[in-house]
Amino acid sequence: SRNIRLAVIPGDGIGVEVVTEGLKVLDAVGAKLETTTYDLGAKRYHRTGETLPDAVLDELRGYDAILLGAIGDPSVPPGVLERDLLLRLRFELDHYVNLRPVKLFPGVETPLAKSRAEDIDMIVVREGTESLYAGAGGVLRRGTPHEVATQESLNTAFGVERVVRYAFEQALARPRKKLTLVHKTNVLTFAGDLWARTVDRVALEYPDVQTDYCHVDAASMFFITQPERFDVIVTDNLFGDIITDIGAAVAGGIGRAASGNINPDRTAPSMFEPVHGSAPDIAGQGKADPTATILSVAMLLDHLGLAEEAARVEQAVADDLLERQTNWTARTTHEIGDDITARVAG
Amino acid sequence: SRNIRLAVIPGDGIGVEVVTEGLKVLDAVGAKLETTTYDLGAKRYHRTGETLPDAVLDELRGYDAILLGAIGDPSVPPGVLERDLLLRLRFELDHYVNLRPVKLFPGVETPLAKSRAEDIDMIVVREGTESLYAGAGGVLRRGTPHEVATQESLNTAFGVERVVRYAFEQALARPRKKLTLVHKTNVLTFAGDLWARTVDRVALEYPDVQTDYCHVDAASMFFITQPERFDVIVTDNLFGDIITDIGAAVAGGIGRAASGNINPDRTAPSMFEPVHGSAPDIAGQGKADPTATILSVAMLLDHLGLAEEAARVEQAVADDLLERQTNWTARTTHEIGDDITARVAG
Ligand SMILES: CC(C)[C@H](C(=O)O)[C@@H](O)C(=O)O
Ligand SMILES: CC(C)[C@H](C(=O)O)[C@@H](O)C(=O)O
Repeated sequence: SRNIRLAVIPGDGIGVEVVTEGLKVLDAVGAKLETTTYDLGAKRYHRTGETLPDAVLDELRGYDAILLGAIGDPSVPPGVLERDLLLRLRFELDHYVNLRPVKLFPGVETPLAKSRAEDIDMIVVREGTESLYAGAGGVLRRGTPHEVATQESLNTAFGVERVVRYAFEQALARPRKKLTLVHKTNVLTFAGDLWARTVDRVALEYPDVQTDYCHVDAASMFFITQPERFDVIVTDNLFGDIITDIGAAVAGGIGRAASGNINPDRTAPSMFEPVHGSAPDIAGQGKADPTATILSVAMLLDHLGLAEEAARVEQAVADDLLERQTNWTARTTHEIGDDITARVAG
Repeated sequence: SRNIRLAVIPGDGIGVEVVTEGLKVLDAVGAKLETTTYDLGAKRYHRTGETLPDAVLDELRGYDAILLGAIGDPSVPPGVLERDLLLRLRFELDHYVNLRPVKLFPGVETPLAKSRAEDIDMIVVREGTESLYAGAGGVLRRGTPHEVATQESLNTAFGVERVVRYAFEQALARPRKKLTLVHKTNVLTFAGDLWARTVDRVALEYPDVQTDYCHVDAASMFFITQPERFDVIVTDNLFGDIITDIGAAVAGGIGRAASGNINPDRTAPSMFEPVHGSAPDIAGQGKADPTATILSVAMLLDHLGLAEEAARVEQAVADDLLERQTNWTARTTHEIGDDITARVAG
């Protein structure tokens, strides 16, 4: 079989460091992979003014998958790289599922006093191509006392139904078979009504999946007080952004939170990235934990049909996390990557 | 001096129970108060179809303050009571500051393993009259595969500046004098830009206040991992809704979270309410904790210039919470109310 072609976008800050470790692990797992690196991010923006040139986007469409580190730098005005690079990739490559497992690995310390590993094991299916992330909005009389600024959340039956169906499939495949819609139907009445009706309608096709509903404010609280309430969550793009950071926090930290920007129809490559950002404050110091990226690599392998390799990487991470508990020493980004690589290889 | 005139809206579910206790405490504190109860909520809606009749709204304008229990019932379609009663009150009475202290009282257990009372002591100044709460939006081709649903966030320089100024004043009055803007400027670029510029501009008038910025997703995480980061937070209506529930969770539970919907210009009465909802699942069983309402009563007294009485109520609550730690017995809503009332009186 031909090699798998992988595009790599290390991006900014610690993105570069963690991607290096992710690639090491990929190498060790023995997949037939061919990688090409793209220098998109703040440096290229400053050098050429480009964020994501159309020609590069077209090239990226030809890969089997993309591995991304992190995007964003304080030297670039807020939103430019996020919107024109990261979000543009998600939208153009139709990553309508942003898949974010929230799982407390055995041995990992959670900030929650009373939760144990078995209490925190959920999957958040965050919509990735609609809502307030569409970038719609405008401003009038900027900088004057009469300024008006708007942001518009755009939601479609097409967009909501496809991600809801994906979430039902995820729920069906898990032992608890429970799906919770998280939204704010009592305030966002138009969008919330579309989401709630869609879940109710699709639910008729999944009699084995139990569904319920939770407002985003209450859900945010329950992530802390009763995380065991949740199995699979389906939610809007913005709410998903917020609750998956809460999820990362309760599951032992943003350094372990993986994600996949998935195009389930495979009309374009999916993109895998840690949930964390570029963390410019610690960049270049070897302080970043590459675990989130390595877990994202496991998701990537799984998406490419390499289930056995994916399981091997996840197991190596689980073993490393357990080892950290009993035998903790400060390790650099490289060292953690090396240790996990050794487990994968050996 | 004339009596203070208070309108009371017990509302739905546990709202009725907790307000009863709040009024007991108000009575015991010895303020010259005259209360009138309004039966707004689900029952009235079912009986008459009314949520907030214009005549009632006009009457309410004449009071010195409003005490509200909770609004919302599963028998009413989502959003009807919230929008046409609760949010209508906030908007019509120009409650542009939704003030929500997040404070872990000594003796109260937090779900966070490592945080102590001194780590969690902040005030969230949530904007109350703009953003996605404006109710703007629409739907096309409802119920068809071509449905499109929108929600619009409306933000004005006028609306943002006044709440930002209020937040700076709050920060100035506290020992740490730190103000954090929480938003999502990298995605909500139009609204975020207005908020960020406004904070930067007003900051020039408050050289003693240290300001910083945090994305809402990161802030949600920091509430759990580093709550001591925050002193005063100023934020948009929707983000404020979410982070104050996280705040309630880390500060020992929604049963203690108080709030004031404040009209700082005093062109209409301010309204005080617990952050929790009507909790229909436990309504009528004497299980609700009235502490959040009683703390809201303290905020009400303070707003009315009765600082000594407010302090007395807050101290009674603090003492009760400390006592709960060492001498815990299950108490009903009434019993907690009675115990706090006795402390206030005695
Ligand atoms: C960087 C930012 C645009 C992005 C988002 O909001 O989706 C990030 O927070 C994430 O969760 O991947
Ligand atoms: C009931 C609901 C409309 C309300 C809100 O979203 O503001 C509530 O969650 C709150 O925080 O007071």
